[in-house]
Amino acid sequence: MKKGVMRPGHVQIRVLDMKEAVEHYTDLMGLIETDRDVEGRVYLKAWTEVDKFSVVLRETDQPGCDFMGFKVLNEDTLVSLTQDLKDFGLEVEEIPAEELKGCGRRVRFTVASGHAFELYADKEYTGKWGVTEVNPEAWPRDLGGMKAVRFDHSLFYGPNLPEVLDVFTNVLGFHLAEQVMDPDGNRIAQFLTASMKEHDIAFIHSDKPGQLHHTSFYLETWDDVLRAADLISMTDTSIDIGPTRHGLTHGKTIYFFDPSGNRCEVFSGGDYTYPDHKPVTWTADELGKAIFYHDRQLNERFLTVLT
Amino acid sequence: MKKGVMRPGHVQIRVLDMKEAVEHYTDLMGLIETDRDVEGRVYLKAWTEVDKFSVVLRETDQPGCDFMGFKVLNEDTLVSLTQDLKDFGLEVEEIPAEELKGCGRRVRFTVASGHAFELYADKEYTGKWGVTEVNPEAWPRDLGGMKAVRFDHSLFYGPNLPEVLDVFTNVLGFHLAEQVMDPDGNRIAQFLTASMKEHDIAFIHSDKPGQLHHTSFYLETWDDVLRAADLISMTDTSIDIGPTRHGLTHGKTIYFFDPSGNRCEVFSGGDYTYPDHKPVTWTADELGKAIFYHDRQLNERFLTVLT
Amino acid sequence: MKKGVMRPGHVQIRVLDMKEAVEHYTDLMGLIETDRDVEGRVYLKAWTEVDKFSVVLRETDQPGCDFMGFKVLNEDTLVSLTQDLKDFGLEVEEIPAEELKGCGRRVRFTVASGHAFELYADKEYTGKWGVTEVNPEAWPRDLGGMKAVRFDHSLFYGPNLPEVLDVFTNVLGFHLAEQVMDPDGNRIAQFLTASMKEHDIAFIHSDKPGQLHHTSFYLETWDDVLRAADLISMTDTSIDIGPTRHGLTHGKTIYFFDPSGNRCEVFSGGDYTYPDHKPVTWTADELGKAIFYHDRQLNERFLTVLT
Amino acid sequence: MKKGVMRPGHVQIRVLDMKEAVEHYTDLMGLIETDRDVEGRVYLKAWTEVDKFSVVLRETDQPGCDFMGFKVLNEDTLVSLTQDLKDFGLEVEEIPAEELKGCGRRVRFTVASGHAFELYADKEYTGKWGVTEVNPEAWPRDLGGMKAVRFDHSLFYGPNLPEVLDVFTNVLGFHLAEQVMDPDGNRIAQFLTASMKEHDIAFIHSDKPGQLHHTSFYLETWDDVLRAADLISMTDTSIDIGPTRHGLTHGKTIYFFDPSGNRCEVFSGGDYTYPDHKPVTWTADELGKAIFYHDRQLNERFLTVLT
Repeated sequence: MKKGVMRPGHVQIRVLDMKEAVEHYTDLMGLIETDRDVEGRVYLKAWTEVDKFSVVLRETDQPGCDFMGFKVLNEDTLVSLTQDLKDFGLEVEEIPAEELKGCGRRVRFTVASGHAFELYADKEYTGKWGVTEVNPEAWPRDLGGMKAVRFDHSLFYGPNLPEVLDVFTNVLGFHLAEQVMDPDGNRIAQFLTASMKEHDIAFIHSDKPGQLHHTSFYLETWDDVLRAADLISMTDTSIDIGPTRHGLTHGKTIYFFDPSGNRCEVFSGGDYTYPDHKPVTWTADELGKAIFYHDRQLNERFLTVLT
Repeated sequence: MKKGVMRPGHVQIRVLDMKEAVEHYTDLMGLIETDRDVEGRVYLKAWTEVDKFSVVLRETDQPGCDFMGFKVLNEDTLVSLTQDLKDFGLEVEEIPAEELKGCGRRVRFTVASGHAFELYADKEYTGKWGVTEVNPEAWPRDLGGMKAVRFDHSLFYGPNLPEVLDVFTNVLGFHLAEQVMDPDGNRIAQFLTASMKEHDIAFIHSDKPGQLHHTSFYLETWDDVLRAADLISMTDTSIDIGPTRHGLTHGKTIYFFDPSGNRCEVFSGGDYTYPDHKPVTWTADELGKAIFYHDRQLNERFLTVLT
Repeated sequence: MKKGVMRPGHVQIRVLDMKEAVEHYTDLMGLIETDRDVEGRVYLKAWTEVDKFSVVLRETDQPGCDFMGFKVLNEDTLVSLTQDLKDFGLEVEEIPAEELKGCGRRVRFTVASGHAFELYADKEYTGKWGVTEVNPEAWPRDLGGMKAVRFDHSLFYGPNLPEVLDVFTNVLGFHLAEQVMDPDGNRIAQFLTASMKEHDIAFIHSDKPGQLHHTSFYLETWDDVLRAADLISMTDTSIDIGPTRHGLTHGKTIYFFDPSGNRCEVFSGGDYTYPDHKPVTWTADELGKAIFYHDRQLNERFLTVLT
Repeated sequence: MKKGVMRPGHVQIRVLDMKEAVEHYTDLMGLIETDRDVEGRVYLKAWTEVDKFSVVLRETDQPGCDFMGFKVLNEDTLVSLTQDLKDFGLEVEEIPAEELKGCGRRVRFTVASGHAFELYADKEYTGKWGVTEVNPEAWPRDLGGMKAVRFDHSLFYGPNLPEVLDVFTNVLGFHLAEQVMDPDGNRIAQFLTASMKEHDIAFIHSDKPGQLHHTSFYLETWDDVLRAADLISMTDTSIDIGPTRHGLTHGKTIYFFDPSGNRCEVFSGGDYTYPDHKPVTWTADELGKAIFYHDRQLNERFLTVLT
């Protein structure tokens, strides 16, 4: 948080069928629906999040991610970071307050990998879901499904990783926590954070811009990852891979797909980082182990997305 | 234990290189070497086992399983079960005491699937390893690797499952805990037990007799299955599949290979059974989910062994 | 199961207020109500149990346990064990079928510690709750509270432990799995089992006959013990001690009270045993550690019951 | 990290017998000894820490904590925070580089609760212990004892909490994550953080200045808390309370004592926080539950320190 960016605050995901999508993110994953808007978008949050929403679902004919937003400390930070983005040479677009219900004004910009990001300072504070503000119990008894704890990060695929790294570290104050380097010294994966988390956002190189690899949610334990895997089977949900561990970040994870084909991750654990930590480096010849620590090879679906 | 068979007591596994094998079963899996004999066989046990050994490694040029032995209540039981086996029409072979060091006389017979089994009543009582007999601590501090708790069961492939079922239930007093039925009413998998465990031994149909699918060891927790998976990667051991859950038994599991190509399993949890429980039935069209509950499809290696 | 006794099949518990009791055992502990009878008794079971009930609640003005019942293999076993009990010198009482709804005839006897036990061979087979009989999922999604897996065992306090041991081992075919010995060689605690479980029933010496210490239910994991502890706090339920581990059996446990003052236990893990295992011995000078492995001293409530 | 303070970087603990103390913190807790100095002080670190040490043991005749140090982003931050401390009216003492081996210059100040703190920007970077810098495994195989992950926080007792809050929030950029309020609106406990952790440091009101309640280390899982509890028993270490959960932070915890009487905590899990989160508030009438969530009352030892 060297320059006042606090956390991934929201992500807008495109889905093909809203009813199925809501069922996936609530009944299966345990998110809570908090609102809908006149455009038909559905707002969701995980129970530990204090703001009104973290996931917005938009129905359309092409899955993927519209944009990801980061919450900053306050309006002053928003103003100064906006100027820094402009000085860096990026175009910024003003999204007025309430374009997303309960959210203050947002400043949107698109980086060289083809992904749109936003900064904002204000969102309606609704408090954690299902627990009291005073003398709160450890968890709400009526959580469903996977009991997702929070929206954690996104992984994107696209070109021009050096420019993207430049923006996130030098303009937004993130630091590089983990990386994959090829033999020629090219960084083919970069995991960036504004906090202690090993990644608030991550990028893997791909020639095609603007791709979403997955949207990730935190779970409390490895037992919860097993419960998630069991629920995936019980609901006949399409699984990608897991339960397993990543080499990068060492998180314990499972990948699966929402009914529109967007990949979701739930995970627990993983390493922590501080700005003085040297980036953790994996070499491209160990990419299989870096991604899937136990199988030590990429599964076909993962490769399909890479190329 | 309707007829006095207590438990899987030992298994003799063929390995191609003894040094590598011992390293695999001790350093990686956490078994303890307890003896060697003049033939060069190495004796191992898991720490909670009270008898001298449960795994015997024999060096030769073909991997697989020589035989599996069950411990019975006492000499009287051994005598009467021997007679019952003969009455059933099986040939029995007497193996004298001390052919395996510390083990009493064994009665060996081969069932119609082509697998050799033994019964015995006596083995040197060495007590649990690493804890005192009086006021024992919860676990020994100096266990290594996966900290295998006990040799649990074996899964064999072979023909003539109905005859094998007949011997194990009607002669030896096991009951059928789980089964897979094909559309024609054939039992293509049978899980048999003499205890509360969902399987002390299991068979899957294959035309080729005498095949070993895997030798299985119990772990205490799902966290231990993760540690096992991590150790498999750290030691560059060949993995088959996991961590995952089985549909059959619902055990939490990982499969991997010893340096000779013998498949090993470590698992935790799983259902329990009593003789009055109806067999749990899986249908052949759900075989993928029955074997690997999360992926819901057999991986290639598993299929290779099946045909 | 040397003589055909399979498992603890039911326990009848006296409660002061039926409504509060049912709420405790269902909403909090996760048992399922399966029936009520004309006497006002309420029948409950845990989800993995295949028979109609395992807990019967009876409203009266004194808490405690009316009797505990063991299921035997079949009617022949019931007949022969009844004769064995008579031969031993115990009076046996015939309870007709359907005195408990769905249960076959029961044979009741009272041992020298002042506790009533029953044997029975038949009970209505309802199958596991919430999962299908064919291709069963790993667990039911709509379990509540602590998600108790099964009624596991009871611990009683009373005099004349040697006579009780004699009945359970020599007449009923249990074996002594664990014991606490005082310096004079008296056995002040005895843990008995007919299975692989470290105790299907346990007794601690007390001069006052017929006392119930606790009724115990199995949970799957140590994480589930934590969840149970959290739920105890959330529901303002009276806690005794835990989460902790026992020295005896090494089970991971928590003790708490139902609204009538009956102590309940939920626990996971613990050692296993076979009839050829020597009894695990704890010495009376280490009784604190034997009971509560971490605190290594008895808490006041535990002592209160002891004297 | 609003003003560049990154994390608790070290703590100097006074012990009565160095040999016993080193054994406690290494063999039992799993810290690694990294150096000793001419004064006889012993330097320790937990395996995930990238700097040379986080715990310094000093032998003397009175247990307690000499000082706690926070690492800041860089020398510029150190200079500006030093000026801010002076402007606030605090005296600052310069400790030259290498007074602690491998540590750059430190700026020391004492707050109104009677506790000494330090800021520093540089410490010898030794990297995580037991794993390689490139393609690192998930964890080192040869960790001992409790496998402490990192020094996490300290809890101090003393007077003048409002002034202390003022320094940590307004000068050092921490935010107030959790608090306990008495009926008169006095804050009797304050948990402060510069990160996502629910506390990097915490204070509970006491009239006597300069007291240490405990030094805390992070573990990865609730299973690890159980292992820690088991090890405490196996080594006959004095236990305070646990395994249990805190209401404040909801961490899963156990308290115990080093041979000198210094209380240690190991814990896992717990909530996370961001600077825009309202402080979590517990009321003094629920102090028992706030501290020990399951027992819902303070044990005697905890109260002893409070008064």
